[in-house]
Amino acid sequence: MASETPAKRPRSGKDVPYNLVYWPGIPGRGEHIRLALEQAAADYTDTAFTEGGVNEVLELVQGKAPDDGVNPPPCAPPILKHGDLVISQTPNILLYLGPRLGLVPDTDEDPDALYRIHGLALTALDGLSNEPHDCHHPIASGLYYEDQKVESKRKSEDYVKNRLPKFLSYFERVLGSKASGDGPWLYGGVLTYADLVLFQCVDGIKFMFPKAMAKLEGERGHARVFALHKAVVEQPKIKAYLQSPRRQKYSNGIYRYYEELDIEP
Amino acid sequence: MASETPAKRPRSGKDVPYNLVYWPGIPGRGEHIRLALEQAAADYTDTAFTEGGVNEVLELVQGKAPDDGVNPPPCAPPILKHGDLVISQTPNILLYLGPRLGLVPDTDEDPDALYRIHGLALTALDGLSNEPHDCHHPIASGLYYEDQKVESKRKSEDYVKNRLPKFLSYFERVLGSKASGDGPWLYGGVLTYADLVLFQCVDGIKFMFPKAMAKLEGERGHARVFALHKAVVEQPKIKAYLQSPRRQKYSNGIYRYYEELDIEP
Repeated sequence: MASETPAKRPRSGKDVPYNLVYWPGIPGRGEHIRLALEQAAADYTDTAFTEGGVNEVLELVQGKAPDDGVNPPPCAPPILKHGDLVISQTPNILLYLGPRLGLVPDTDEDPDALYRIHGLALTALDGLSNEPHDCHHPIASGLYYEDQKVESKRKSEDYVKNRLPKFLSYFERVLGSKASGDGPWLYGGVLTYADLVLFQCVDGIKFMFPKAMAKLEGERGHARVFALHKAVVEQPKIKAYLQSPRRQKYSNGIYRYYEELDIEP
Repeated sequence: MASETPAKRPRSGKDVPYNLVYWPGIPGRGEHIRLALEQAAADYTDTAFTEGGVNEVLELVQGKAPDDGVNPPPCAPPILKHGDLVISQTPNILLYLGPRLGLVPDTDEDPDALYRIHGLALTALDGLSNEPHDCHHPIASGLYYEDQKVESKRKSEDYVKNRLPKFLSYFERVLGSKASGDGPWLYGGVLTYADLVLFQCVDGIKFMFPKAMAKLEGERGHARVFALHKAVVEQPKIKAYLQSPRRQKYSNGIYRYYEELDIEP
């Protein structure tokens, strides 16, 4: 019979550590993977903290690696290696990890949960990670911020005024829907990887646009989103992680602080 | 036992038509869903062609619908309704449809194929759909193109010169990797939904940036990508679809033609 849902536990032959391949020096998109692994107390390695780790990233994204006849080459990190599997794309890696790390509900009881949670994670990454990144690189990711400052200001003003409230209101609506269940989480009354994604997005935007986020937090209409952020911080394993040296500071990654972009909405 | 892979066939109780909910008047992101449904000759409805279809889109993205205790509200179309399931996000819908429409390899034999194919689709959508959209809306999706023409020109120049060749070269590398197998397809020697996504992206960019694409097609280094585009066009069901009135013309959607953005690389 065709089976219907991804594994809840590591498959036989894959009871090995997870290997996260990501740039050192910034939390970046790799942070979404780290939070899932940390919340599950999973056994993992991270090229951000291994000697010569950056070479492993470069080998995978610039060369023809892995070309093992099984895995297509990845385009960009984060990349997850797990046994003989090599996959990339943040939401895709979380899709793979979710059932294995217990970060989706029981998929035998609720097989469609995977798609509902994946949709939420994709939407958070679109509106609250990719768009903030484009606020400081609206013209070209290959140019410096200094070469697109005027456009960055204009885009950030629109983002803070229109897009950010739109996405926070959307997630507030999700959190207020019946499908979210009881408690602070997005879906089914249990913490899933979509909650960890939303936490990281809100956390990064608080760093990048502190004035706007302080105002939005004080207004009616986004209380549940900010409560979710707090509820994730209070998870014991996440709390310990956030206080550890493994939690890197925001710097020149997705979420950046530029005073001139810290716009009052 | 925990099952490991999504269904290859509609689940019991879901042997009902697929309902695509998308804006009328543009192919847009909905086109990726249509191509999958058409290639599989699936039974489906499409709000782009049903009377009052736009109201169904608005009800789902503006209101609290569905709020059925099962599905979180979607943020934006495309949305897929299938029986009691309501999901959004283009790659997520394709993830759901892939095994059901026979657009991924046999997941019993190759359970990790799902993640490899999903990663390819996500990368194509990032670099060859979202970025082209941002070429004509680099500052704000809520403003008219006319209000961001200068920035659009600057972004398009970078896209055509740097980003477009980068992503075409990446997919050329994937098509040349051992994991792609024999024939024109990205993964495992069989047509998957990732191939349909890449086709639609290349097709749209040929419309949007014809000068650049003609040059890139004539150069060494991207032959396999353009051959994939041709191979998809030659699929009998796709061929019939492309000639049908269901295939909408590119207009003011993701892929737009503006003479001033039709840059020679």
